[in-house]
Amino acid sequence: MKISWLLSVQRGLRLGENKMLGVTILGNNSAVPAFDRHPTSQVISTLRRNFLVDCGEGTQIQLIKYKIRRSKISHIFISHLHGDHYFGLVGLINSFALLGRIQELHIIAPAPLQQIIELQLKVADTRLCYPLHFHLINNTGHLMTIDDIEISCFKTNHRIECYGFSFKQIKKPRRINPGKVHAYNVPISFYADLQSGNDYVDENGTSIKNEELTVEAPRGKTYAFCADTKYDESLLPHIRDADMIYHETTYLDNFAERATQRFHSTTKQAGRIAEKAAVKKLLIGHFSSKYDVLDDFLTETREVFPATELALEGVCYLI
Amino acid sequence: MKISWLLSVQRGLRLGENKMLGVTILGNNSAVPAFDRHPTSQVISTLRRNFLVDCGEGTQIQLIKYKIRRSKISHIFISHLHGDHYFGLVGLINSFALLGRIQELHIIAPAPLQQIIELQLKVADTRLCYPLHFHLINNTGHLMTIDDIEISCFKTNHRIECYGFSFKQIKKPRRINPGKVHAYNVPISFYADLQSGNDYVDENGTSIKNEELTVEAPRGKTYAFCADTKYDESLLPHIRDADMIYHETTYLDNFAERATQRFHSTTKQAGRIAEKAAVKKLLIGHFSSKYDVLDDFLTETREVFPATELALEGVCYLI
Repeated sequence: MKISWLLSVQRGLRLGENKMLGVTILGNNSAVPAFDRHPTSQVISTLRRNFLVDCGEGTQIQLIKYKIRRSKISHIFISHLHGDHYFGLVGLINSFALLGRIQELHIIAPAPLQQIIELQLKVADTRLCYPLHFHLINNTGHLMTIDDIEISCFKTNHRIECYGFSFKQIKKPRRINPGKVHAYNVPISFYADLQSGNDYVDENGTSIKNEELTVEAPRGKTYAFCADTKYDESLLPHIRDADMIYHETTYLDNFAERATQRFHSTTKQAGRIAEKAAVKKLLIGHFSSKYDVLDDFLTETREVFPATELALEGVCYLI
Repeated sequence: MKISWLLSVQRGLRLGENKMLGVTILGNNSAVPAFDRHPTSQVISTLRRNFLVDCGEGTQIQLIKYKIRRSKISHIFISHLHGDHYFGLVGLINSFALLGRIQELHIIAPAPLQQIIELQLKVADTRLCYPLHFHLINNTGHLMTIDDIEISCFKTNHRIECYGFSFKQIKKPRRINPGKVHAYNVPISFYADLQSGNDYVDENGTSIKNEELTVEAPRGKTYAFCADTKYDESLLPHIRDADMIYHETTYLDNFAERATQRFHSTTKQAGRIAEKAAVKKLLIGHFSSKYDVLDDFLTETREVFPATELALEGVCYLI
């Protein structure tokens, strides 16, 4: 039995058992690849599909390395058009065609990307064998709802137009309590009403409270990807109370001035954002190529926000 | 002492001792990356500089992995605009800027590439800190002479416009024989004439043959990169008698029909080209992602042309 298959089943089981989203890191480095770290890309996985967020150069090779099912990628979100966040996209689109993909692919990105991709396909005389749809971001707020995931985007504070994305599981309907509906003889035809929260009134006119017959479904989880950004509290409303956020920490704390100049953040700035937004967990990445060892990133950020993890390539973080 | 430094010194010494060119393979796979093989890219090294030929996605990561001095890359040659031959170029150009490069970079490529690169730099608001020059290929034949290397291009037979490149060391001037010029009292002012092949006539009118005073310089080496191509004997005049050629072998011999349909070559076709062109050594690559193990490529090609080597990533082949 192939290890790749086992790994993918294991990932599926973990996501299933926990009724959660998972995020797998494919690249955690800033602009220039270094120390075997790759430019930004990550995969948000549900049981049914993979959402790819950013697609730096080499992403398709990382997808193979970490046994991510490419055919399950239905949507690709690009935060902004600095190359370390999208130079791998055209190669992936091209490879999908060579691999004989037939299902639709959706690209959600700032406008000029469509022109860039289409130009490159044209000069290569490439005709895709699957439908490719561009959704150009021209506003913040709700983007789309896919399965039970509501996806929104929000502006971050970067040198060029840049967007973060939030992935929110829609709250499930209330769950029927089988013992109680049986005891009160609730007809099956009323179950949908119960799941919507209505009380049940029997044939004698007796009302039975919804809470007696159903239990609340588990809360939907939220993950927010904050892209590239300098410290900016205007992000807070968009990520408040999230179960996990990814916030960049290009620099350690002693480079705060350079971080601001270059529209990036430091460890402690990311920690402060996570703390003020009252999120449950913080994932940090986009490390500058200045740094070989990453331990100080974790130490410094945890001084401000203890529930922090380094975004390590190949690791799937459950949300 | 760092291993990287030792490796680079070793490479330099090998090139120096042998007065040769060397070619290091960075990617030997065809379109879709597979089995840890990368898309096409290779480095032609002289003691003074590196020429990069093709630049598939991930080339900048391969350059780091195999300790190739990026700052020594002065010219990049792109054979054609299928993505597996150039999708890594914009990332490399971008990284050069982030690394603070100041020396000129020359790109030699089919015309539409300039538009693609400039569009991507523009949307990212990237201003390069070094001069970038495009030399658009609009004809075959002599391209340029750099140091003692004469570089030409020739058309190959592919689905879109595609060029091969030949790198030829210009024959060096004849070498002065120190013992003989001393014995015949040849004045130093005449040395340049001797190196050009002229005889020496002393003050008494006695003529001394050039061959008596000089020795012939070693023959210049030639390397030819045949890009992507189907079997086509019109390549022969451009690569005849080369010391080494690289010819693609996308497929094994039993896929000859598919190779022709897709404008690619098989093992035996590459062997026949090498044999007919009377080259000294054949390097084969651009292996289809169908093949995990490459042994049969070597066996089949050697049946036709014994002096064949597999182009293996990370290996420097001396010419």
